Amino acid sequence: MSQDASSEGDLRNTGMSLKHDREWDYELERIVEAVEERDAKRVGLQFPEGLKRRGPAVADDLRQLCDDDVTFMLSGQPCYGACDLDTYLMRRTDVFVHFGHSPMKESDKIIYVPLFSNVDPFPIMEDALDDIEGDEVGLVTTAQHMNRFEEMCDWLEERGYTVQTRKGDDRLTYEGQVLGCNYASADIPADDVLYVGGGKFHPLGLAMEHPDKNVVIADPVNNVVTIADTRKFMKQRYASVHKAMDAEKWGVIFCTKIGQGRMEIAEKILEDNDNAYLLTMDEVTPDRLRNFDMDAFVNTGCPRITTDDGPRFHKPMLTPQEYRIAVGDEPLDALEFDTFHGTW
Amino acid sequence: MSQDASSEGDLRNTGMSLKHDREWDYELERIVEAVEERDAKRVGLQFPEGLKRRGPAVADDLRQLCDDDVTFMLSGQPCYGACDLDTYLMRRTDVFVHFGHSPMKESDKIIYVPLFSNVDPFPIMEDALDDIEGDEVGLVTTAQHMNRFEEMCDWLEERGYTVQTRKGDDRLTYEGQVLGCNYASADIPADDVLYVGGGKFHPLGLAMEHPDKNVVIADPVNNVVTIADTRKFMKQRYASVHKAMDAEKWGVIFCTKIGQGRMEIAEKILEDNDNAYLLTMDEVTPDRLRNFDMDAFVNTGCPRITTDDGPRFHKPMLTPQEYRIAVGDEPLDALEFDTFHGTW
Repeated sequence: MSQDASSEGDLRNTGMSLKHDREWDYELERIVEAVEERDAKRVGLQFPEGLKRRGPAVADDLRQLCDDDVTFMLSGQPCYGACDLDTYLMRRTDVFVHFGHSPMKESDKIIYVPLFSNVDPFPIMEDALDDIEGDEVGLVTTAQHMNRFEEMCDWLEERGYTVQTRKGDDRLTYEGQVLGCNYASADIPADDVLYVGGGKFHPLGLAMEHPDKNVVIADPVNNVVTIADTRKFMKQRYASVHKAMDAEKWGVIFCTKIGQGRMEIAEKILEDNDNAYLLTMDEVTPDRLRNFDMDAFVNTGCPRITTDDGPRFHKPMLTPQEYRIAVGDEPLDALEFDTFHGTW
Repeated sequence: MSQDASSEGDLRNTGMSLKHDREWDYELERIVEAVEERDAKRVGLQFPEGLKRRGPAVADDLRQLCDDDVTFMLSGQPCYGACDLDTYLMRRTDVFVHFGHSPMKESDKIIYVPLFSNVDPFPIMEDALDDIEGDEVGLVTTAQHMNRFEEMCDWLEERGYTVQTRKGDDRLTYEGQVLGCNYASADIPADDVLYVGGGKFHPLGLAMEHPDKNVVIADPVNNVVTIADTRKFMKQRYASVHKAMDAEKWGVIFCTKIGQGRMEIAEKILEDNDNAYLLTMDEVTPDRLRNFDMDAFVNTGCPRITTDDGPRFHKPMLTPQEYRIAVGDEPLDALEFDTFHGTW
């Protein structure tokens, strides 16, 4: 997702990093069991950015519980989702534990520890009811709060709402779950969608994907209710598309992260445009793109790099559809949020 | 090696980036031949940082020379040597071309294009003779100038010097070649070593590895003669070791780049120290280490990150031997430059 510390979706702004260690359940027993069952000698541990700091303490606890000959290896690679497994570490360890995300794809090798939040969502949901306009409402949340999703549904129904939920597509693990790049769980008829969770990263994506819906944010972590407002982002998108309309040389970015590759889209652009060059990389950063003398970039990887970090790049960076608009293959008013489907 | 744009070893400060395209021989015929021979459909191109900007033009030329159904993919990953192959791209292409370095290890899959310089080394070598103190001299250079190494030897011998050269170990391709991490080619009896090449990155490493030698730098790119002076670096090394002596929690970095892994050294530290944690990553950057709450780091990867970029990290970063000094296993005056041997 966003790699910008100051972006609105950054975990460090959501209060998650303020919580005490003991509030997370690292499911150590499940890990120890797998280590013993597989007689594992090397165990890889991968945490998302906001939780990497907890890694050494978790490794300590596991060392206490496992034999001395088990080596624990902490991934130092950036990690922004279950789309972003450290495949190097995964392939070289007997057990690989990915913390903080739900499975994008199950595998015997990987243990996913979702790290469910123990924050109480109901007080802030109570406050959010004022902003729900109809009596039908979509309900969505993130992996961290999935453990209370059914309770949340019941709670809304008790208050007279008809709750609409969906499982989305196979990129999503749970009914009602959203990812930064996928809001298929909000493809429901209701005009109101209630998002319960920390931060604005997810609900802003949801509102961009569903511009006609009223997206109410009940944030139990920062204890605040807001309405998702995408105007700043949308202005930036149109500005980037306009700037890129003059581009001659295009860099087409193919992201090598396991769950962020869309090669067919990249290859289609290359086929149609002799001034397009395929660039492959895992992290898509301003420094890396500055190495290439291009007029504009199309990012076929994570859409949130494009929308959230876009202004940090020295040249306009577009989503694949925005590229088609910039080169005249689609009209400007067709512009919609780039979402990511499927696994790998 | 160094990832710091302002470091003394940075290609961008050596004048290499000022040269006109036509001065490099990209050996396109050799690449086209391999593409045809192997009926390749996907061709990966990897350039070091200072030359990435030339990638699209090279891809253009190759597209002209190859069938339309061949896709050229430019690596956007940072690259600091032949130790730093883009293995993702290599494994997914039929032909993989690595520009700007000599082979660390030959492979059928990889075409190494060394990009020999066509700059004339002799005028600046003439100036450098004043600083050579004895009549025996070691001669070393980098991959870029290897094409004239024998001429340089002859030239020095014609002027009455006994020239001492060595091939070093199996990490090095050529007689007289140095890498940022390996100066085995300067293990010769002479007190004077003449380095012919651009920038100070290599001769500073050489002088750190061989502190008793007079290392004369004949830089034909920037047209200047200097004597390698390691005092600034050595001060920094001692300061880092002193600071790290109080450290309790140690992060032990294992670099996942194909030619930069020293797992035995990392595992030895982990065995002996219960307060050491293994961290794995490809790029070793200040941002990535800031994620971990450690008191100090030991870097078992590229030694030049430690020596050249060290001051940019928030906590002291030591080489494996400096770690042993900091924890009291070796005396302070044993401190020597960390070099890297073998391939992968």
